[in-house]
Amino acid sequence: MRNITVEFVDSVPVAKQDVELVERKGIGHPDSICDGLAEAVSRALSNEYVKRYGHIMHHNTDQVELVGGRSSPLFGSGSVIKPIYILLSGRATTEVDDEFIPVGDIAIKAARDYLRQNFPHIDVSSGVTVDQKIGLGSTDLRDVFGRTGMPKSNDTSFGVSYAPFSLTEELVYKTEKYINGVMKKKIRGSGEDVKVMGVRYKNKITLTVANAMVSRHIKNIKEYEVVMAEEKKLILDSIAGITDEKVVVDINTADDYRAGSVFLTVTGTSGEMGDDGSVGRGNRANGARDIANEGAEQVYVRLMSQIGKPIDQPLCADIQVVGDRKIEKKAKEIADKWLADIQKMTQLCLTGKAECF
Amino acid sequence: MRNITVEFVDSVPVAKQDVELVERKGIGHPDSICDGLAEAVSRALSNEYVKRYGHIMHHNTDQVELVGGRSSPLFGSGSVIKPIYILLSGRATTEVDDEFIPVGDIAIKAARDYLRQNFPHIDVSSGVTVDQKIGLGSTDLRDVFGRTGMPKSNDTSFGVSYAPFSLTEELVYKTEKYINGVMKKKIRGSGEDVKVMGVRYKNKITLTVANAMVSRHIKNIKEYEVVMAEEKKLILDSIAGITDEKVVVDINTADDYRAGSVFLTVTGTSGEMGDDGSVGRGNRANGARDIANEGAEQVYVRLMSQIGKPIDQPLCADIQVVGDRKIEKKAKEIADKWLADIQKMTQLCLTGKAECF
Amino acid sequence: MRNITVEFVDSVPVAKQDVELVERKGIGHPDSICDGLAEAVSRALSNEYVKRYGHIMHHNTDQVELVGGRSSPLFGSGSVIKPIYILLSGRATTEVDDEFIPVGDIAIKAARDYLRQNFPHIDVSSGVTVDQKIGLGSTDLRDVFGRTGMPKSNDTSFGVSYAPFSLTEELVYKTEKYINGVMKKKIRGSGEDVKVMGVRYKNKITLTVANAMVSRHIKNIKEYEVVMAEEKKLILDSIAGITDEKVVVDINTADDYRAGSVFLTVTGTSGEMGDDGSVGRGNRANGARDIANEGAEQVYVRLMSQIGKPIDQPLCADIQVVGDRKIEKKAKEIADKWLADIQKMTQLCLTGKAECF
Amino acid sequence: MRNITVEFVDSVPVAKQDVELVERKGIGHPDSICDGLAEAVSRALSNEYVKRYGHIMHHNTDQVELVGGRSSPLFGSGSVIKPIYILLSGRATTEVDDEFIPVGDIAIKAARDYLRQNFPHIDVSSGVTVDQKIGLGSTDLRDVFGRTGMPKSNDTSFGVSYAPFSLTEELVYKTEKYINGVMKKKIRGSGEDVKVMGVRYKNKITLTVANAMVSRHIKNIKEYEVVMAEEKKLILDSIAGITDEKVVVDINTADDYRAGSVFLTVTGTSGEMGDDGSVGRGNRANGARDIANEGAEQVYVRLMSQIGKPIDQPLCADIQVVGDRKIEKKAKEIADKWLADIQKMTQLCLTGKAECF
Repeated sequence: MRNITVEFVDSVPVAKQDVELVERKGIGHPDSICDGLAEAVSRALSNEYVKRYGHIMHHNTDQVELVGGRSSPLFGSGSVIKPIYILLSGRATTEVDDEFIPVGDIAIKAARDYLRQNFPHIDVSSGVTVDQKIGLGSTDLRDVFGRTGMPKSNDTSFGVSYAPFSLTEELVYKTEKYINGVMKKKIRGSGEDVKVMGVRYKNKITLTVANAMVSRHIKNIKEYEVVMAEEKKLILDSIAGITDEKVVVDINTADDYRAGSVFLTVTGTSGEMGDDGSVGRGNRANGARDIANEGAEQVYVRLMSQIGKPIDQPLCADIQVVGDRKIEKKAKEIADKWLADIQKMTQLCLTGKAECF
Repeated sequence: MRNITVEFVDSVPVAKQDVELVERKGIGHPDSICDGLAEAVSRALSNEYVKRYGHIMHHNTDQVELVGGRSSPLFGSGSVIKPIYILLSGRATTEVDDEFIPVGDIAIKAARDYLRQNFPHIDVSSGVTVDQKIGLGSTDLRDVFGRTGMPKSNDTSFGVSYAPFSLTEELVYKTEKYINGVMKKKIRGSGEDVKVMGVRYKNKITLTVANAMVSRHIKNIKEYEVVMAEEKKLILDSIAGITDEKVVVDINTADDYRAGSVFLTVTGTSGEMGDDGSVGRGNRANGARDIANEGAEQVYVRLMSQIGKPIDQPLCADIQVVGDRKIEKKAKEIADKWLADIQKMTQLCLTGKAECF
Repeated sequence: MRNITVEFVDSVPVAKQDVELVERKGIGHPDSICDGLAEAVSRALSNEYVKRYGHIMHHNTDQVELVGGRSSPLFGSGSVIKPIYILLSGRATTEVDDEFIPVGDIAIKAARDYLRQNFPHIDVSSGVTVDQKIGLGSTDLRDVFGRTGMPKSNDTSFGVSYAPFSLTEELVYKTEKYINGVMKKKIRGSGEDVKVMGVRYKNKITLTVANAMVSRHIKNIKEYEVVMAEEKKLILDSIAGITDEKVVVDINTADDYRAGSVFLTVTGTSGEMGDDGSVGRGNRANGARDIANEGAEQVYVRLMSQIGKPIDQPLCADIQVVGDRKIEKKAKEIADKWLADIQKMTQLCLTGKAECF
Repeated sequence: MRNITVEFVDSVPVAKQDVELVERKGIGHPDSICDGLAEAVSRALSNEYVKRYGHIMHHNTDQVELVGGRSSPLFGSGSVIKPIYILLSGRATTEVDDEFIPVGDIAIKAARDYLRQNFPHIDVSSGVTVDQKIGLGSTDLRDVFGRTGMPKSNDTSFGVSYAPFSLTEELVYKTEKYINGVMKKKIRGSGEDVKVMGVRYKNKITLTVANAMVSRHIKNIKEYEVVMAEEKKLILDSIAGITDEKVVVDINTADDYRAGSVFLTVTGTSGEMGDDGSVGRGNRANGARDIANEGAEQVYVRLMSQIGKPIDQPLCADIQVVGDRKIEKKAKEIADKWLADIQKMTQLCLTGKAECF
């Protein structure tokens, strides 16, 4: 029996509160680059472990630091003067019964491949240094993974999940996805570094977008202005189907056309010119959605794992619901099934089918 | 007029919900070491800027990465085999009107001094490499700070603050403070790396403590067991005055006495043996306390700054209150005064009088 | 008039002395890798400067440090566990009249390309980290290059050249060239890391060869033994046409077949398993050959440049000859012509036509 | 019986040739800093090994790379803007029978102590980053040292020694020693970075001195000029007792007083402003002196060690003498005794009694 509790609270859901603040960083934001690299490295190592030993060995490579470089973006051209420096750290199992696993190699290759596949404007062969300082894990932790059966938790930690998306969240999410998705075909100069902040005051929503533009695709400041206007129009069109509420969209608010100071980059990410990044500690899984779909206004799921315990047996799995008490049994069943199926989720992660952002 | 909104929500305060999860890391946790270093570096740079130019110049040194070393802790002795590697990055103003500010020097000195002052078991002259890759900031940001009057925000970002502490929060906070404070006189072997997790289920509270022990002060595994028992008793005594509720305290739950595998370190921090750290993105300021003291059950304050705007004029300052509407005016006044006095807070930070942890 | 002196000394030429010691490292020796990288980086930067400004700007990138990795070579397979770390340092002109030259990018790209082209067994996308810390040069030096006319020397330094090759030198040189050249078609398992030491005692010459073998191409220790015997025979055959003197060839003398300890590598270079490298300060140019061809038994040419002086006007160009005084005038003319043509040599270096090893 | 050969060659000794070129770098030259650090690290490790195990374990820490920083020297003040970065690499025995030796710690501590003791103008707590990437040696090499009796050579390499000093060599040597020695009491602004080049043409000797000056001790360019003149006078006085030949002394020849461009530093070494350094491969031991004292005009001693052979049994010890054949027996005896006593020399190195520069 899993330790699952369901609590019904008589609270005002976020969507009905007066003020709501939402932020989302796209794949090219320096922090997201680190998140993506950490995922890619872990996935590559996990696959290697599975290939060799049938199951994943202990590793913890969620430490990635991106030190911004220096660039000289010029309308129509531009170059990176000082490459971006990326440090992969953490620990991993590098030796199993006298066999060595080339952890450093796998990590660097995974990182470089990830950059190559996701950032068309970064010249990975010259504009980035990928360094690594991945160490051996401490013995007791590695033992945790060494046993058969359900894997054991390798840390005592929290996880939070919630649903459903409020309107503001949906707008922020879809806007970022749009900019880094289909909009690229229309605006070639749009870089991967995108940050969307949504502020709702009562029913007035403002989306503040920061979007790094790629210098070689924009001829001059006039074209930049034109592109900004076009991007604004495209975004407004793209969200028109989602809501009838008035939404204000502001893009690159720090731009100063007169001073010629705009958000122009060579590579499409501000990491090229001094903005550093590191792995976030955000909440990503949205398992709560199934529960919300049963009819709750709002669902928070909190998990607390305890080091050494099976990962499907959290110390605490708490479901907090704003909604009707009649879904209690259903909520428990859903959570129980999710935990029972936790190794399937691992499998989805390994094959890259689970969405990380 | 500042844009301050007060909203009264009819929600169940955290302290009255069934389940509550709280975590606090002490000064020697690898993440906290990074937090502390980031603060120390920023403070040192700020003081240098003030000394030279009368006000703080743009810098953003909140990127610190700690790569764990390797150690061989032995009861009664032990040594660090591979030093901890610390990378300071970010950007700073290194040149003002042809005068150079020795940013790298100041940062490294501040970091080494901080380590020396706070970690008696780390031999800073040999056990740590402090490296730096602090770059120049991008021009438009530096301009933000270049003007007179109220400083301008250098990023678009959120800040959250809340009050009052729930009982669980208070217990977690005070337990960590106790372990890293007066308890040290009684248990010399207690290291600075402390993590306290509190879980409350209805009125049953469990505190799970991870506390790195210092090998040279503990003779053998038997003494370790004795020390653990003593520490548990001391913690229970220390919280006896806070609550009458039954509190369970568990320390170093991953220890396995039979296997001889316990949380033993040379330096008092797990950073010595592979645990990495990076700067957190936590919420630290507790300005909401004054509002809670007016009689609210719970207060959340959310600030959103916008790049280029004066820091005392946030885009949004939202106060969410669970409590009586009669404190609305008072709440606004308090928030307004806090924003008006924001430069005094800066002053407290510079002189190290504001508590960062 | 150039300051050229010719001195005839009545000394015993090296080839006639009793004992002669000669060493040559092939392209894959860790020191040679650094030499080659330094050349490649300088060539790439020079070509970029020429393309942009018509002439080479100041740079000094002859600092390359290779920190050995860790590998696990196994007969028939093997892997690199910890990548090789390469640090490019030195200085270069990164800014010219407000235009930035992407020095870091060019350097890293040149280095990675060089590795890819020359080391078929190194997986450059995963087995190597190329980092760079190339700084701005000091102003006064950069001025040296900023002027028109003959470039100025950027350091006060010595250069030495000599000719002709003695028999021992010729054997050492040709043996290394053979191993890293045509022999590869016959012995696929021969790696690029080759060191040949020649010792002549009177007319008895011993060549001691260290040649890293590539694990994936050698099935087991027996095949290794067979390969060693074959390589020895091939080398003896290859030098048979050069001399009738008896030459002893020893390969991988530290091998211990019984202990299974042999010179086996994954990548063909000992850099993969802990052998570090740095740029040598050897003597490479052999301009003295033309003088020797005039009939001298032995010629040493020493150049001393002085910072700030035109490079075709050395402070001292001294030709020391063992041989007949009648070639004095010819020797001076040859040296004078070499200096006059010094910019042509630069051109050959830029286009990669001058042999660096 | 050791393999010692003595050869008498009828050659013109260097001191009697027309042209002689000599160079010597003082302790503060970037290359010499690396040499000194390599020695200090090796000495510290050796002492630790001897303390623990009674004899020196394998290590090879002669790889040190210094990456120059950036500085802003101003007359009367100045600061280091970007710290010097020093990378210690190589390999060492880090584990002996399950006991760990804290190699990284020892190395970093030795390096920092060395800098602190020798460079009064470098603020070691802020102006230098000492990093390390010292790896485990390959197994076969470490075995070499694992046995009892005479230590075995860990590489196949050459060593050269010669005597006596020619007049030019003596002048260069003593001038550098004087500048970095007693002259400091008279010229406080003289830094440790000193390079002396001596050129002799027939009997005319020119000493070209490059001496970094320390900015805080020199008020302005006029005082700099005065100091330069004084230093020249002091050097000429100091060598007056050595020779009656006319010696020309030039100091800091790249200085340009009108342009205000002079050799001014904050720390006394050009490493602060971009000059990199690495370990030299010079010839240091002067064991040949005892043989020269027997009456030879010139003595060259060449040693070739072979990996795995006892260090007192070189593959080849060749003594080349310009002088009377009657000293042959004596020369052999001296060389034989030196080799027999080789472990005493090790002892002198460990206790720091052997002069490294």
